[in-house]
This record gives sequence, structure tokens and C-alpha cells, in this order.
Amino acid sequence: MSKGMLFVVSGPSGTGKTSLVRSLVTSEDGLVESRSYTARSTRPGEMNGVDYHFVSRITFDEMVARDEFLEWANVFGNLYGTASADTQAHLADGVDVVLVIDVNGARHVRESKVDATSVFVLPPSPSVLESRLRGRGRDTEEEIQRRLDVARDEVSAFSEYDYVIVNDDFDATVEQLRAIVVGCRAKLPDMDAEALAIATKFVPR
Amino acid sequence: MSKGMLFVVSGPSGTGKTSLVRSLVTSEDGLVESRSYTARSTRPGEMNGVDYHFVSRITFDEMVARDEFLEWANVFGNLYGTASADTQAHLADGVDVVLVIDVNGARHVRESKVDATSVFVLPPSPSVLESRLRGRGRDTEEEIQRRLDVARDEVSAFSEYDYVIVNDDFDATVEQLRAIVVGCRAKLPDMDAEALAIATKFVPR
Repeated sequence: MSKGMLFVVSGPSGTGKTSLVRSLVTSEDGLVESRSYTARSTRPGEMNGVDYHFVSRITFDEMVARDEFLEWANVFGNLYGTASADTQAHLADGVDVVLVIDVNGARHVRESKVDATSVFVLPPSPSVLESRLRGRGRDTEEEIQRRLDVARDEVSAFSEYDYVIVNDDFDATVEQLRAIVVGCRAKLPDMDAEALAIATKFVPR
Repeated sequence: MSKGMLFVVSGPSGTGKTSLVRSLVTSEDGLVESRSYTARSTRPGEMNGVDYHFVSRITFDEMVARDEFLEWANVFGNLYGTASADTQAHLADGVDVVLVIDVNGARHVRESKVDATSVFVLPPSPSVLESRLRGRGRDTEEEIQRRLDVARDEVSAFSEYDYVIVNDDFDATVEQLRAIVVGCRAKLPDMDAEALAIATKFVPR
């Protein structure tokens, strides 16, 4: 069995990256979303161990101090982190893992030299992003403006990624994301062991 | 409009590479199969301009002499070639092109330094390949043995390719091939122009 692959999906707040990945992992075998740790409090509808591992600020800081995070970032004043051990356990089991993280988190993954395929999700336009942020009904006007300001900085980060998808039509964008994952599974050297096993059966007579 | 991408699909005779690509191009927009030139005579059911451009040996040799082929190869005593002009015209129109060619043809494309994504199609096992070659009902016993001999040499060439797919289940393998094409379309730098056009709309205030 070959090792799983690590995928990083990021993009500005409101591009729909979390919904895209949720839809993909529920309809694609052998792929899980990494559950992040966060030191923020739960929002309505969120469940501990489902949406995030909710931990105290002290616990989070201890995990940082013990270098237990593959990446962690401060996103709009809240701390989020991906535990290295969780990710490595899935990959060792041959399961592919997707991290849904922000631009800074993705930079930390890149710096960590962990082998990952990265995908940037762009909104089709600033006005669509703004109406999506409003449509979530989650943020105050001030927070929406702050997210839009950060988005203006973050969009140019697309060039740091392996793939870029534009989330205009949700279902079509999920299929693009699936194609990236399925395509990568057929890539060498990931296919090397399986291909070699077949090729060695063709012993020259 | 960005330039089309070039895909090379190859594998031993009988792996089903031609049927896979035919199925893909009829169900995927923006992708065409390159029609090869050949100096061999037509086989039952083949049509000039549909399956191949059938030309005389003299015409083929003249095209070789004028360096009009992106690649050409002698496959089991028959000459096949891909015209550079046909391919470049499609790519310039923003259409992706698939070449279904043998291992030697793929090597010539690689040597030509033309930018191409290459996919190797493996049969699941030698016995499946043998029964497929017999099932085609096209070759004499001697020709089948010759194709199997060549397949034994060719399978190890998989390591020269970007992607490897195993054609065990036809429909599933077509979808893998589609995922490779759709995934590659989302790759940077191919997505660069489209992503930049969106990113520049997010002008910092």
C-alpha cells in the first residue's frame, strides 16, 4: 500500500473552500479532511470533534510549544492549527488528507518541506465574494469589510499554488477539485509501486 | 484565450489506449484527438480522414524529409506520424490535443522539447493483454506473439511518463484519463492569465 497524499486547499474567507472540500470528501473514497484544532469558542451549529477540536488557549499554546502542529495560523484573531500526528497517521494508512487552511497556513506547510499539492480557490469576482460573505449572515459589517480587505491582499497569493480553481458554479468546482485529486493519484512517482508490480509480471521470455 | 495543452497517451498494443481516448474526446469539450498520418493500407472499417490520413509511402517520406512531423514511428512495420501543423493549429485555437502514439513516438515528442503531459496505459496483467489481442480478431497468431514480445519490452517505459493508469475497468479508466486532463487545466501556469484577470479586480483600496 502506498502512502497517502497531502492536499492543501486555501483561498480568501468566503470563497467556499470549506463547503467544496466537505462535498468532495463525502463523495470520494480514500480522502479525509483534516480536523483542525482551534482556540476560539464554538459558533452556533458547530460541534467539538466534528467541525474542529475545540481546545483552550493554554492547550493550544502548549501544542505550539511542543511543535505538535504541521501548521498553525492566527486567522482574524482566532488560532487554528493542524496536528502533525493526525495527518501522518492518515497518510501512513494510505489515506489522502485535505487541509483547508488560510494563505499563511499554506505558507507554513510549504516551509515545513512536507510534500503537498496545493489548490487555491478564487471567487469569480469581488462583488460575488462580498455577497457570499453577507449571505453567510455570520459577520458584522465591520468584520465583512475586514475580510474583504484581507481578501484583496490574499488573492495575489494564487501564484504560490500548484492549481487554481474559480468557484463560480459549486458542483462544477467540486468536480474540478475531484479531478485534481484523482489525477494526482495517477501521477508518478505515486503510481510507481503499482506500475512496477504489473511491469514485472511481463518477464521477457 | 490561453493556448491548448498537448497530451500524449501511449502504452503497448492492445491496452485499449485508442478506445479510451475516443471515449474521452467524444464526452469532453475542448479536447480533440490528433489524426495521425499513416503509410499503411486501410483495415476493414477504417475511413480516410476519420481514423487516419492514409497517404502513400512516397508522400509520407516527403513529409519526413520536410520535417513536417512532430513525431513519427515505425510500429510493427507500418509508418505513423503526427503532423506538427495540425497540432499547432488546434493548440493555437485554445483546444487541447491528445496524441495516441507508441512508446517510440512518445520519446520523439519528449526529444522535440514540445511541452506535453504524458500518460502511460498499462494492461492489468500479461494474460489480460493476450486475451484482448486475441479478442480483437485482427492479428495472426504470429502477430499476436510479436505484439506480446514488444509489450514485454515496452511496459517498463511507464517510468518515462507523467501519469500511469491501469486499464482494468474501461469506464473507470476513461474517468481517470478525464481527471488528468481536467486537473491539468487547473494547473499553474496554465491558469495564470485567468487567475490574474480575477486577482486584478481585487484592487487594494
